[in-house]
Amino acid sequence: MRREIGEIPSVVERVVATAEIELSDVARAIRRDRPAWAMIAGRGTSDHAAVYAQYLVETYLGLPTGLVKPSVTTIYEASVAWRGGLVLAISQSGQSPDIVAVLTAAREAGALTVAITNDPASPLATAAEWSLDCHAGRELAVPATKTYVAELATIASLVASIDPTAGLTDGLAALPAALDETVARTEDWLEGRGGDAVRDLAAADRALLVSRGYNLATALELALKLKETCGLFAEAYSTADFAHGPLVLSQPGIPTLAIRPDGPMGALVDETLEAVTARGGRAAVIGGADASAHPGALSLPVAIPESLTPLVYVVPGQLVVEAVARQRGINPDAPVGLGKVTRTR
Amino acid sequence: MRREIGEIPSVVERVVATAEIELSDVARAIRRDRPAWAMIAGRGTSDHAAVYAQYLVETYLGLPTGLVKPSVTTIYEASVAWRGGLVLAISQSGQSPDIVAVLTAAREAGALTVAITNDPASPLATAAEWSLDCHAGRELAVPATKTYVAELATIASLVASIDPTAGLTDGLAALPAALDETVARTEDWLEGRGGDAVRDLAAADRALLVSRGYNLATALELALKLKETCGLFAEAYSTADFAHGPLVLSQPGIPTLAIRPDGPMGALVDETLEAVTARGGRAAVIGGADASAHPGALSLPVAIPESLTPLVYVVPGQLVVEAVARQRGINPDAPVGLGKVTRTR
Repeated sequence: MRREIGEIPSVVERVVATAEIELSDVARAIRRDRPAWAMIAGRGTSDHAAVYAQYLVETYLGLPTGLVKPSVTTIYEASVAWRGGLVLAISQSGQSPDIVAVLTAAREAGALTVAITNDPASPLATAAEWSLDCHAGRELAVPATKTYVAELATIASLVASIDPTAGLTDGLAALPAALDETVARTEDWLEGRGGDAVRDLAAADRALLVSRGYNLATALELALKLKETCGLFAEAYSTADFAHGPLVLSQPGIPTLAIRPDGPMGALVDETLEAVTARGGRAAVIGGADASAHPGALSLPVAIPESLTPLVYVVPGQLVVEAVARQRGINPDAPVGLGKVTRTR
Repeated sequence: MRREIGEIPSVVERVVATAEIELSDVARAIRRDRPAWAMIAGRGTSDHAAVYAQYLVETYLGLPTGLVKPSVTTIYEASVAWRGGLVLAISQSGQSPDIVAVLTAAREAGALTVAITNDPASPLATAAEWSLDCHAGRELAVPATKTYVAELATIASLVASIDPTAGLTDGLAALPAALDETVARTEDWLEGRGGDAVRDLAAADRALLVSRGYNLATALELALKLKETCGLFAEAYSTADFAHGPLVLSQPGIPTLAIRPDGPMGALVDETLEAVTARGGRAAVIGGADASAHPGALSLPVAIPESLTPLVYVVPGQLVVEAVARQRGINPDAPVGLGKVTRTR
């Protein structure tokens, strides 16, 4: 797991370098067909990549965008009017039968279908009209790390290809260096104040993760990593949903990990951090330049738009999870009770 | 809270009785405009009504349907192409500024907008082209119970009005009697084997809720009720998502509450229950006729389609939550740290 996290800068570099050749045709098709909406399908880690894609597609392309509920197709066998839209399916393995079934139904009904997988020979890649390779290389550890960031990089590169005026291209080019720096800074941080965050999480049986907007995906993904890798009952909430109830769970002994981008979204995260502190909860913060206002925070002043920060901020979180697992005496590469590929109907 | 749960049968009767007069115009407008997709907005409890609506609208009306991310509008200020779709906003109070902002933006952009609230004079009701009253009457307890079921009943009545051939009408008419019977059966069950489920939850600090399809909304809503009313770290998963990671959280001392409808979806819930039991976890089951195969289950053999069972199965769950709160020495009507109306940007 640790080695594969270390490969993330070069994986993203590969995705960005191949994007112009591999994504120009699908981008042209999407511009030509002008889908009126987008629906995105994924499970587990790829569901969090789908959450990221939902924000990115809706914000940058202006398409109303939702997440697919596969059981409407696979169990309720409903006939859905998919024509006129874009259906994007994301899966590291490309194996889960329910995701393949939805993409197949959408393609047959006339949707523009795109699959993002780490295996271009997989059933999902074969079922889609357009198959995009996320170029992560083979991932050996059960918890997905580099494949998650590779999925995000592929999604962002696709949106940048569809709308070259969106301003994502420079940020994508800056990512590999920013990621290299992030890994180095995180290692320093874990030697110091980040070590407190690791100890708090390793000693807890419950944890809260909060963010909002693009980085809701980061919070969701790190919560799942803490669950499946460390057996920790960790749950992620948008700061808005957090205020509608789950805030009452915050208390001493239940640590909070906040992902705090700069800008207006960061100010909303600050309000949540105040509420957590008022309840006696301890919070660790990973974020941008302004995160440094929080004592002990990991502040990563990378010059990229907020929409690309989920590719950066998740990396320190993955390193935290890896350290928490080791401190709990768990082998992070092969947590008990989990397989690499999950097939659901 | 207990008294308001007891009012649910008469609230649903009122929604169903007024539907023909109050919903025929909006139903005609939706049939006439033929929206190509639907997007649904809600927060907290109303977000779970939105999950229910997502399944119902997609399955019965065949429209690709997603859940709105309000921050795309309120924080990222994106311009979204809402024209040509149906945007449905759900809020008990009709007060949350982010939901009002999305509905306003969607209406200005040309979407067909519908609000479901318990206050026809609220900002959300005023912002929508079509405002539907969910007729729950004033709710005094902080945890929403009757307003949640009233929202579900309004959603189902709307879908039944849009497509009278869908087969929902008879089921809706049967609901008030089925709910009366459900309350009575639940009271008996809580005296017996249901009491074990209450004791397990009252003694735990974490809990898992599982279901899939229409009743994913039920599991999500009961998890939120256990959080906000009892301070329990309770999380809900679809059985498919559960298999993609969170299953590893199941262990002795962390009880599971499963909502098990009859039919193919119930068989999938059974697979999850087997996995939970194999890990030494204890599970309580609320469901239909076939749930009786699980020892100690609350089996409710009501003759309504699965798509309407979320209005029924949530009621025993609410009564369980109320009993767990009392057993933990909490006043369920006014849990510490929560207000009735939450305003988020």
